[in-house]
Amino acid sequence: MPFDLILHNATVVTANDAMEVIENGFVAVKDGAIAAIGPLSEKDPLPAGKERIDAGGGVVMPGLVNAHTHLPMTLFRGLADDLPLERWLHEVMFPAEATHIDPDSARCGALLACAEMLLSGTTCCCDGYFHADCVAEAVDKAGMRAVIGQGVIDFPAPGVPDPKKNVRHAATFVDQWKGRSERILPSIFCHSPYTCSAETLRAAAATARERGGLFQIHVSETAQEVQQSLKQHGQRPVPYLDGLGLLGENCLAVHCVWVDEEEIQTLAARRTAVAHCPSSNMKLGSGVAPVVPMGDAGVVLGMGTDGCASNNTLDMFREMNTAAKLHKVHRLDPTATDAETVLGMATIGSARAMGLGDRIGSIEVGKRADLIVIDTTAPHLTPMYSPVSHAVYAMTGGDVRDVLVDGRVLVRNRVLLSMDLEKIIADSRGYAQRIVRRG
Amino acid sequence: MPFDLILHNATVVTANDAMEVIENGFVAVKDGAIAAIGPLSEKDPLPAGKERIDAGGGVVMPGLVNAHTHLPMTLFRGLADDLPLERWLHEVMFPAEATHIDPDSARCGALLACAEMLLSGTTCCCDGYFHADCVAEAVDKAGMRAVIGQGVIDFPAPGVPDPKKNVRHAATFVDQWKGRSERILPSIFCHSPYTCSAETLRAAAATARERGGLFQIHVSETAQEVQQSLKQHGQRPVPYLDGLGLLGENCLAVHCVWVDEEEIQTLAARRTAVAHCPSSNMKLGSGVAPVVPMGDAGVVLGMGTDGCASNNTLDMFREMNTAAKLHKVHRLDPTATDAETVLGMATIGSARAMGLGDRIGSIEVGKRADLIVIDTTAPHLTPMYSPVSHAVYAMTGGDVRDVLVDGRVLVRNRVLLSMDLEKIIADSRGYAQRIVRRG
Repeated sequence: MPFDLILHNATVVTANDAMEVIENGFVAVKDGAIAAIGPLSEKDPLPAGKERIDAGGGVVMPGLVNAHTHLPMTLFRGLADDLPLERWLHEVMFPAEATHIDPDSARCGALLACAEMLLSGTTCCCDGYFHADCVAEAVDKAGMRAVIGQGVIDFPAPGVPDPKKNVRHAATFVDQWKGRSERILPSIFCHSPYTCSAETLRAAAATARERGGLFQIHVSETAQEVQQSLKQHGQRPVPYLDGLGLLGENCLAVHCVWVDEEEIQTLAARRTAVAHCPSSNMKLGSGVAPVVPMGDAGVVLGMGTDGCASNNTLDMFREMNTAAKLHKVHRLDPTATDAETVLGMATIGSARAMGLGDRIGSIEVGKRADLIVIDTTAPHLTPMYSPVSHAVYAMTGGDVRDVLVDGRVLVRNRVLLSMDLEKIIADSRGYAQRIVRRG
Repeated sequence: MPFDLILHNATVVTANDAMEVIENGFVAVKDGAIAAIGPLSEKDPLPAGKERIDAGGGVVMPGLVNAHTHLPMTLFRGLADDLPLERWLHEVMFPAEATHIDPDSARCGALLACAEMLLSGTTCCCDGYFHADCVAEAVDKAGMRAVIGQGVIDFPAPGVPDPKKNVRHAATFVDQWKGRSERILPSIFCHSPYTCSAETLRAAAATARERGGLFQIHVSETAQEVQQSLKQHGQRPVPYLDGLGLLGENCLAVHCVWVDEEEIQTLAARRTAVAHCPSSNMKLGSGVAPVVPMGDAGVVLGMGTDGCASNNTLDMFREMNTAAKLHKVHRLDPTATDAETVLGMATIGSARAMGLGDRIGSIEVGKRADLIVIDTTAPHLTPMYSPVSHAVYAMTGGDVRDVLVDGRVLVRNRVLLSMDLEKIIADSRGYAQRIVRRG
């Protein structure tokens, strides 16, 4: 019984608990899962497979997992930068969303995001936005894996004009998508503790919990948010959310830039995971999340790019690079974070944060075959002493050659097989023209 | 009299003082210089040219200028990361240099660096290393432009076993290369105030000045260095160097992470330029250079990647991205640096810092034709509201399609025309194998 597909002639970076690297390795795929892994000596014959992909001496890694995105915001990439946060949000982003995000543009922006993610080696993401049904449809069509959260906010929002129906709307989305695709897990994304009432937060979290879905929420992104929470609730955001019973294993807290030692202990005790978004936190001038103490306390840490309006790309290789360097300089200590820790965060860490740690995030027998092949022949990857160092400090999304999700080849020799890229780009440019014209 | 070459169908980012951007623009080249620039309306005929390059609706920019490199260190890319600075330097880098840097490896590493720089859109660099004659030879062969500094240090160094002869050795290099190539300007690079005596510093600076060459030196990279200077000289590094008469318009101070307000005023008053290397300062945990106050004080600011052992690539697009975000988060202010300022730093700023501000660094008639074409059809550059925003926040070196230096096409459709890339990569891997074997 041959395997369906064999990736060979590769240095395999497993991202397993021991961060094993296999020289001259192969990965065999059967029925969409990883069926065998190993080194090959020169006399070993390659196992039998219906299809073979020669990695050309490059690196095979688990697909990167982006733990925080707002996919349709690709359409706002570079629309406004370098502004004070309040102006950026209230004068540009919120009006742009109100005017331009509808089912069609959400679908288009999400397809553009999938194209970008796949071509840069991300095979799975955790999204939170409006028109989640359109986002889910796009991601499913692209062949990617994702947790897709329907946005909940106590204001009129794209697709949810009446905020009183926001939780009900999210529940309907989860019910419609539960079990529809093995690759798509529906979820609920509350925007934040300061844009949702206690009642909304409780109802949304209960709705997610009852349905076995992930509950996502932005937490302590800025220092102002913490001040506001203290003023309004007499508590910092984490104890406030804890008091509402929101924290737990199915909760993903995004950002957590301004969490103190006690809050870190609470996150760890509740087994609430954190999505670390260093580029976005830097670009918006929000601050540096205490990733080292959170890691020391045992908080599950994933990594995300955030939306394209505040990054401005979805390249998880760039995100790893930024993360590794940011914490070193922030702590004035080059040992603060190392390449293995950061690679772990962007693969198995994100997978665990999304509740998918047993299915993806590392190359281990039995896991789904979400795999990427890196072409290491470019000058900027020459020489290669350590593929893990290169993944964090030298590779970019542009070095990704082939991408598999669930054992299916979605990118081959840098060409997207699952999508009509030209049409997506033309459509996206059309929306951009309208955005520029109508403001 | 037709032009030699016309780049057309492009959005031209000039990086001139007004940061003008020309929609549907063209750039005409004659005798290696920029001879005409302009927008074309649909009825304007394209000017006559012997050769045409259709930019395909992409971006044409000045080639990026890397204000601080140690080219042969590409051979140590990723050899050691995440170590305390002292161990990294004394246990890995210095021994590796002593054992493995000779004329052949220096030439090979420099060729590898040129290949990487050209393919990622850097057309000019400011180097400081040993075996500078071999580095200059490699850069000249690659067709790039550079200021090449011979390293001076009061210890035995590659090619300079007797430190007593270090300044004489550098003088010989400058004399040999002065006027030899229009693209190569020889220079002297003193490693630092803590590895060179006052006598060495004065002699090296005088030697550079007499010969009209740039004098480069690492200054205040770490807080420890400042403490040591205070202890040894009773002064911080900038006043110490100023007292020696080293600062001036031909001096390029590299790093300047730990300079106080008074030192910033001194640098501005002496018209001493600073090469800002954010990635290296982050990766080594050195600190964040006060780029905003330095800019406010009128210090000429260039940008550099530093060597590949502490970055780990020479991609100036990545460097711009890092710089723009780093100062925002460091100052908790998203307006701290904007895309135009950062792009200026990596082009005309670096050119001025190297004494080449009248020849390169922007697209202006009369300047040398160091130009790059960016392919903007990728999903991560879609849509494009502002090419300047994209240059800083979304592009990577991998988006560079064509590269011209001095009007000569060195990269066309992502293929290096001036070098045998396969041989360079094979040779570099050979050196890496020896480095791993011999330690």
